Amino acid sequence: MNTISMAEKLASFTDRWAPKIVGQLNDYHVKLVKIKGEFVWHSHPETDELFLVLEGDMMVDFRDGERHLSAGDMIIVPKGVEHKPRASDECHIMLIEPAGTRNTGDAGGEMTAEDNVWI
Amino acid sequence: MNTISMAEKLASFTDRWAPKIVGQLNDYHVKLVKIKGEFVWHSHPETDELFLVLEGDMMVDFRDGERHLSAGDMIIVPKGVEHKPRASDECHIMLIEPAGTRNTGDAGGEMTAEDNVWI
Repeated sequence: MNTISMAEKLASFTDRWAPKIVGQLNDYHVKLVKIKGEFVWHSHPETDELFLVLEGDMMVDFRDGERHLSAGDMIIVPKGVEHKPRASDECHIMLIEPAGTRNTGDAGGEMTAEDNVWI
Repeated sequence: MNTISMAEKLASFTDRWAPKIVGQLNDYHVKLVKIKGEFVWHSHPETDELFLVLEGDMMVDFRDGERHLSAGDMIIVPKGVEHKPRASDECHIMLIEPAGTRNTGDAGGEMTAEDNVWI
């Protein structure tokens, strides 16, 4: 039951596309992730997924077009909706989703990260 | 499936201690609230509660002592744990908790807010 500093947690790692868990809310995990470049198209058939940008800018591609998020912007991707995050410069994001949610969802592949790394 | 700007949402209301819903993640609500002064001691017997400070400073009193949160700090209050938020100057907070969670939890009373106000 301690205060968790997002800035301190973000300063503790440098790898990208590898979400780190910083808290648990019931059966949900709060994760931080750094991204740069393009992710893979995927969806999460079982759950919505929350993105809150903490620093930088990101785009989320959907099949109907792209969305732009800057620091302080949030998007909640509905379950089953295909999306592809990307960022031209490094962007720091908070994610909230049920524990065990795989970053690449139904797509899998080489960008699949460990889903239970706490920092 | 739109981008939600926390700054724009925060600019759209001025009342305090009255959480506004800005998004839904499965059966959880993402809320914004402005606080100043002292809330009431209460707990949520059924759920954890996430606080993320977006602007300003707040304190959360627990029976074992206080925690200080600045912008970018998060705390997750475990279910059933008594707590009392307070802020000497206005503070803007994001809350995440299951839909229908009452702001005053098991305490009730005059600071109880409507629990289904969307902005």
